[in-house]
Amino acid sequence: MNENVACGTSQITGARFSIHPMTDKFVEVILGAIEKANTSKVWMETDDVSTLVRGRSSHVFDVVKAIFIYASQNEMHTALNATFSHGCPGDTTGEVFLAEDDKKMNEARLAPLTQYVTSQFALYPMGAASYMNTIMEQVELASSDKVTVQGVHYATQLKGNVHDIFTVLEKSFLDCQKGDSTHIVMTVNMSANSPSHKEDK
Amino acid sequence: MNENVACGTSQITGARFSIHPMTDKFVEVILGAIEKANTSKVWMETDDVSTLVRGRSSHVFDVVKAIFIYASQNEMHTALNATFSHGCPGDTTGEVFLAEDDKKMNEARLAPLTQYVTSQFALYPMGAASYMNTIMEQVELASSDKVTVQGVHYATQLKGNVHDIFTVLEKSFLDCQKGDSTHIVMTVNMSANSPSHKEDK
Repeated sequence: MNENVACGTSQITGARFSIHPMTDKFVEVILGAIEKANTSKVWMETDDVSTLVRGRSSHVFDVVKAIFIYASQNEMHTALNATFSHGCPGDTTGEVFLAEDDKKMNEARLAPLTQYVTSQFALYPMGAASYMNTIMEQVELASSDKVTVQGVHYATQLKGNVHDIFTVLEKSFLDCQKGDSTHIVMTVNMSANSPSHKEDK
Repeated sequence: MNENVACGTSQITGARFSIHPMTDKFVEVILGAIEKANTSKVWMETDDVSTLVRGRSSHVFDVVKAIFIYASQNEMHTALNATFSHGCPGDTTGEVFLAEDDKKMNEARLAPLTQYVTSQFALYPMGAASYMNTIMEQVELASSDKVTVQGVHYATQLKGNVHDIFTVLEKSFLDCQKGDSTHIVMTVNMSANSPSHKEDK
């Protein structure tokens, strides 16, 4: 297998994500958020485009959520871009922690922190002809009392509290793995403290 | 077809993208870049998470490249996140300009503007069991004398001049459409004026 397309075994979940604080102080906001988050149960590496997190699915979501929430607590406009991947063929098992229990390390400290966000996400179940049905099922299941769901071109838009949004995203990603595809990709964009949000609230 | 998964007919290329200038002046940088770009051959709409561009493939790439280059000409750290899509089943033909020739409207003004960037991109050929082969072929073709290509988890990393990088991205996206899949998605992340780039150059 070409190393260029190495990604994950069926047990590993990975996310490649970037935090974009729209402020002159972006470096300290990003580093401060990474420092605050408990990343002890994931393998993590940052390059000049993105940060890679690998481990059990629950911890990957926990860490991405923690870093985004910590980065956006300063009222400044902050964006998250993330690609989650599970079950990509052709990986080594390196660079990953799997021997951890499922207790999320950040949730207790994050719970009191609220944040209104708008998010757009898209699911890509790979290698299966039935992928559009899988996507449609998950989009319908994304509807909940707590988040506003709207179809937009190439994505599904969610608006609400960051905790409720992450609950929908993690559930959609896991449920999607029960379909015909064993390799699932999910892209997520999220915006906090946007000047446009004043109209929503 | 559920409106939540509407995306594109086989003729339409669309991109949903965001520009993230890491500066207190992000609003004027973004609006200034959009204003400078010639968007006369695409249908375009901005919401609080991203901007949607739809039209012929050449113009979609031209407009995304123009807005990113104009936004990053001020030496400030600027990121681009984009998802390109072609051939998604189940769309209306609305919200798109297809009756245009292929002459790019921004290229002449962009040509003299150089910009070193790092980019990570991933191809997702949907609905075909052979998708990993299609991805591997494209990654191998991405290699060129002008850009540095490196495989990373979940993506392929390109470093070089923004013009050369966009040439590789557009070519990979088009070539990928010749494979078994008629629905191709490509995600792109790009970083200009990153503090980390000093080491590269």
